[in-house]
Amino acid sequence: MIKTDILIIGAGPVGMFTVFEAGLLKLRCHLIDALAQPGGQCSEIYPKKPIYDIPAYPEVLAGDLIDNLAEQIKPFEPGYTLGERAQTIEKLEDGTFKVVTNKGTEHYAPTVFIAGGLGSFEPRKPPIKELVDFEDKGVEYIIRDPELYRDKRVVISGGGDSALDWAIFLSDVASEVSLVHRRNDFRGALDSVEKVVELSKSGKINLITEAEVKGINGEGKVESVLIKHKHDGDIVKECDHFIPLFGLSPKLGPIADWGLEIEKNAIVVNNALDYSTNIPGIFAIGDVNTYPGKLKLILCGFHEATIAVQYAYNIINPGKRYVMKYTTVNGVEGFDGEKKEAKKAAVIKI
Amino acid sequence: MIKTDILIIGAGPVGMFTVFEAGLLKLRCHLIDALAQPGGQCSEIYPKKPIYDIPAYPEVLAGDLIDNLAEQIKPFEPGYTLGERAQTIEKLEDGTFKVVTNKGTEHYAPTVFIAGGLGSFEPRKPPIKELVDFEDKGVEYIIRDPELYRDKRVVISGGGDSALDWAIFLSDVASEVSLVHRRNDFRGALDSVEKVVELSKSGKINLITEAEVKGINGEGKVESVLIKHKHDGDIVKECDHFIPLFGLSPKLGPIADWGLEIEKNAIVVNNALDYSTNIPGIFAIGDVNTYPGKLKLILCGFHEATIAVQYAYNIINPGKRYVMKYTTVNGVEGFDGEKKEAKKAAVIKI
Ligand SMILES: Cc1cc2nc3c(=O)[nH]c(=O)nc-3n(C[C@H](O)[C@H](O)[C@H](O)COP(=O)(O)OP(=O)(O)OC[C@H]3O[C@@H](n4cnc5c(N)ncnc54)[C@H](O)[C@@H]3O)c2cc1C
Ligand SMILES: Cc1cc2nc3c(=O)[nH]c(=O)nc-3n(C[C@H](O)[C@H](O)[C@H](O)COP(=O)(O)OP(=O)(O)OC[C@H]3O[C@@H](n4cnc5c(N)ncnc54)[C@H](O)[C@@H]3O)c2cc1C
Repeated sequence: MIKTDILIIGAGPVGMFTVFEAGLLKLRCHLIDALAQPGGQCSEIYPKKPIYDIPAYPEVLAGDLIDNLAEQIKPFEPGYTLGERAQTIEKLEDGTFKVVTNKGTEHYAPTVFIAGGLGSFEPRKPPIKELVDFEDKGVEYIIRDPELYRDKRVVISGGGDSALDWAIFLSDVASEVSLVHRRNDFRGALDSVEKVVELSKSGKINLITEAEVKGINGEGKVESVLIKHKHDGDIVKECDHFIPLFGLSPKLGPIADWGLEIEKNAIVVNNALDYSTNIPGIFAIGDVNTYPGKLKLILCGFHEATIAVQYAYNIINPGKRYVMKYTTVNGVEGFDGEKKEAKKAAVIKI
Repeated sequence: MIKTDILIIGAGPVGMFTVFEAGLLKLRCHLIDALAQPGGQCSEIYPKKPIYDIPAYPEVLAGDLIDNLAEQIKPFEPGYTLGERAQTIEKLEDGTFKVVTNKGTEHYAPTVFIAGGLGSFEPRKPPIKELVDFEDKGVEYIIRDPELYRDKRVVISGGGDSALDWAIFLSDVASEVSLVHRRNDFRGALDSVEKVVELSKSGKINLITEAEVKGINGEGKVESVLIKHKHDGDIVKECDHFIPLFGLSPKLGPIADWGLEIEKNAIVVNNALDYSTNIPGIFAIGDVNTYPGKLKLILCGFHEATIAVQYAYNIINPGKRYVMKYTTVNGVEGFDGEKKEAKKAAVIKI
């Protein structure tokens, strides 16, 4: 059971920065994300691409932006529930919210910040009839812990960076890696493609192109896949895991059924005040919210998070008043008591 | 005569970032600031202190923040009127605003962004009766162009970083530099104090402590100052310039008389939409504005600037519609046609 001050649904850049602003107010945060890693769209869709409109960063890779945010929020020790989707929300008698994930993990908090972006990232699934039956029985769409594949026989399918990168990585972990791709050109970084070709030559990756996985067989778990090759006909490939990596696409998902006011697939908030939703205690920030003039930009989400946190403070500490102080003047004190602060000006006798 | 799309009053961090967001929309900006350099409070009050709450900067010196913003906005070639205070504003028949500074410089623009922070930085003046009579006749409070002092005799007074740093700098430019300070301890960086002591020993700075400038003499321009020494009595020091450096303090100043709705020394804006003031065409962003829940934080000003610029676009380009595009996807094209953009994903045949 997880208890926190602010439960943040979505660990994209906006959810992450919330941890920092909440920390300044001595509020603790826990983040839930369907993805295996924090960073939202930045990590999942374009980690190696530059962003040019983050203030005071003439250019920053989306992945570096996330690394820097992770570093910035570290003093405030956020908790994470990763690889799980927030599924249901319930307001308990004492006013606390209970949020349960699709894996049954329970979270309790007096305030909930929805920073769900375009929605929970869900895998694009190839059209294989038996696929759903083998989910978590050898079929995985997201690699959470590479150790799961140690000394196992793995079939990956896909033709993008994700398929290439994991094929390379797992070639050192698994006993056998096959990479199946429909075409014989790949859409990815040049050096990844070259590396895969090299590993294929040295026999560490079994590269099967112009082919598609069309069926799965096994008793209660994956035992083999059926590969249809454009020229060579059918291949039955014995394996322990089948990992289709065709990208993830965001779906607003369960949030749409939580009784929140929704407009154009986004949650309506009060931007004139605190970015609260129609349910008191639930705020929505970042790409997931909408209001007149809304821009789906990272820098806007940062502002929304900062403002909303001040109002969450009032809910969590009724009757208390928080007076904002500049970080430059007061420093930043982590939950472990460690403090970063500016050197005081010295008065020096001559 | 200066003409631009968005006239920005105040070249603090928020005014500066406005140039970037406007540039993305192909709008040109010109900035007016009472200070000799851009950066507002960050440059004037705490350039060497760390800020901890700029998103994705676990720590950044205020001066570096400004340097990074300057770099980011460079492609959009902002114009500057520095060292002048915007004094009057007038709406012309054609709807254009005319803004004139205290030095008479005229600016014309269809929209005005007030990013004036806590107000125009005005020098703290020492209580010397003749001081005002000699302003711009040998008395300067801000050093705009050090070359003005080449081979001249200069008296600086003050005991902080600014007095120390300029005394050091001008010791290489002026024919004679005297530094007069009331006490014999200085409030500044240790190495600056040490450097001044060293230059004093080698005769390059004439250090006069426990003393104050109390009078100024000259026919139409500064010819000497009267220094009262705590122990040694009066000294008449011949010189061409007297530069009192006792810091600058912000005053809302003339903006308060422009017919804008003012509350608690700040300009009331419509935060539910576009950060517009009660005068159509004038927006107010950053520390200078107020609305329910306002936080005087740099990151909030960045958001306000970004939103306001979208609405200014509609005033400047009536009838046209701007569709926001991600910088990552579309790149950033400077006014000189140079473009920064992400590498496209490659499709590689194996
Ligand atoms: C190609 C591309 C280029 C871009 N370029 C720019 C740019 O140059 N500048 C800019 O400012 N923005 C840009 N953006 C947009 C920017 O990435 C988003 O504004 C930003 O990611 C929004 O952050 P967020 O934290 O609100 O949401 P997201 O980054 O979308 O993160 C939301 C997270 O919430 C999770 N989630 C949602 N619902 C649930 C649930 N029920 N349970 C568990 N987890 C859930 C999702 O899995 C996701 O990880 C770009 C976007 C793309 C795709
Ligand atoms: C010691 C200190 C520490 C701080 N720490 C932090 C921190 O940790 N985090 C944070 O977010 N913020 C911090 N701040 C606040 C931050 O500096 C301000 O929020 C920020 O500078 C506001 O930016 P701005 O562009 O709105 O205005 P300013 O930086 O105030 O700039 C306004 C400019 O407008 C000019 N101006 C005004 N009127 C006129 C006129 N009529 N004509 C010409 N020029 C004019 C002024 O000269 C000034 O240069 C701190 C401030 C101080 C003093």
